[in-house]
Amino acid sequence: MNDKRPRHYQWPPLPENFSEQVPDGDNLERLVCDTCGFINYINPKIVVGAVVAWQGRLLMCRRDIEPRRCYWTMPAGFLEERETIRQGAEREAREEAEAEIVVGSLLAIYEIPRISQVQMIFRATLLSDDVGAGIETQEVAFFDFDDMPWDDLAFPTVTWALRDYQKVEGLDDFAPFSIPDTKLGRRILSGEL
Amino acid sequence: MNDKRPRHYQWPPLPENFSEQVPDGDNLERLVCDTCGFINYINPKIVVGAVVAWQGRLLMCRRDIEPRRCYWTMPAGFLEERETIRQGAEREAREEAEAEIVVGSLLAIYEIPRISQVQMIFRATLLSDDVGAGIETQEVAFFDFDDMPWDDLAFPTVTWALRDYQKVEGLDDFAPFSIPDTKLGRRILSGEL
Repeated sequence: MNDKRPRHYQWPPLPENFSEQVPDGDNLERLVCDTCGFINYINPKIVVGAVVAWQGRLLMCRRDIEPRRCYWTMPAGFLEERETIRQGAEREAREEAEAEIVVGSLLAIYEIPRISQVQMIFRATLLSDDVGAGIETQEVAFFDFDDMPWDDLAFPTVTWALRDYQKVEGLDDFAPFSIPDTKLGRRILSGEL
Repeated sequence: MNDKRPRHYQWPPLPENFSEQVPDGDNLERLVCDTCGFINYINPKIVVGAVVAWQGRLLMCRRDIEPRRCYWTMPAGFLEERETIRQGAEREAREEAEAEIVVGSLLAIYEIPRISQVQMIFRATLLSDDVGAGIETQEVAFFDFDDMPWDDLAFPTVTWALRDYQKVEGLDDFAPFSIPDTKLGRRILSGEL
């Protein structure tokens, strides 16, 4: 374990009235409210998203929220309660790109242990090119791999998802990709970054 | 959406001082503490586990905790903060069966939307048959498919994982299984069960 990891990563941050305690019958420190005794069990969070194709090009969104405002991403966001992961990916495409998608294969699972995040990225296709910028998006656009704004992608996971998408074009039955075995990938998977 | 679904499923249950409110800047009801204003964002929970092989037989645990005490399962449990999903599966095998495992392919992703649970089950092999009952386990045992206690498995996901394991024996590159398209599977995936 790396000492730089936050002990408990939560967004939004907790108020001041929580402190770290080991509850009765537990074996790990949890965040407990000093006022009412409520135990805040924090669980790793699932992000769902999709690399969305339309006639050979890919749908991308320029972010209008921090972090990485103005940079490009595929539609993705936190899974909500009582959703399936495919429903979550559909909802995020609708919210961020006003896009109606059909979700296909699970492309990749990228993990970011430092912030307890598990990203599940699918392949998907559009039902029509009637798309638009949602409230968290500056603009949407379609790109080929040749004109993709590679230097202006929001996160390493976006780059990986696009590259992994290329690798399995035409394939249906494949194991989902993981974080790549590169210097950056290893630092993220170890919890350093 | 099915009306029988709990609006917010959380274990352990919340104390009485939380009520459903839509926080500023949000678009969904969240559980908010009436005393201090703390917003309890509930996220879907990840369960990690493994179908563990040793010389052609599979390692199973008889549960010593509710629900389904005395019934058989593969080692599995909730992913903790800052773990990778493979580390979580290793830890659960250690905690429940005193087993040191090597995690392989992702076998299946089973979702239970009613309780906002995403189960990620791997294939794994044992490093030795030096195993034992952990604190939440009555006994551990190795079974062939022929002598597996099929009628005493703890959950449908255990049955599915064992059956799906059989289907991909000898294969390495395959898409993880999902909840099967059966009457029971469809009722679980729809959130009814």
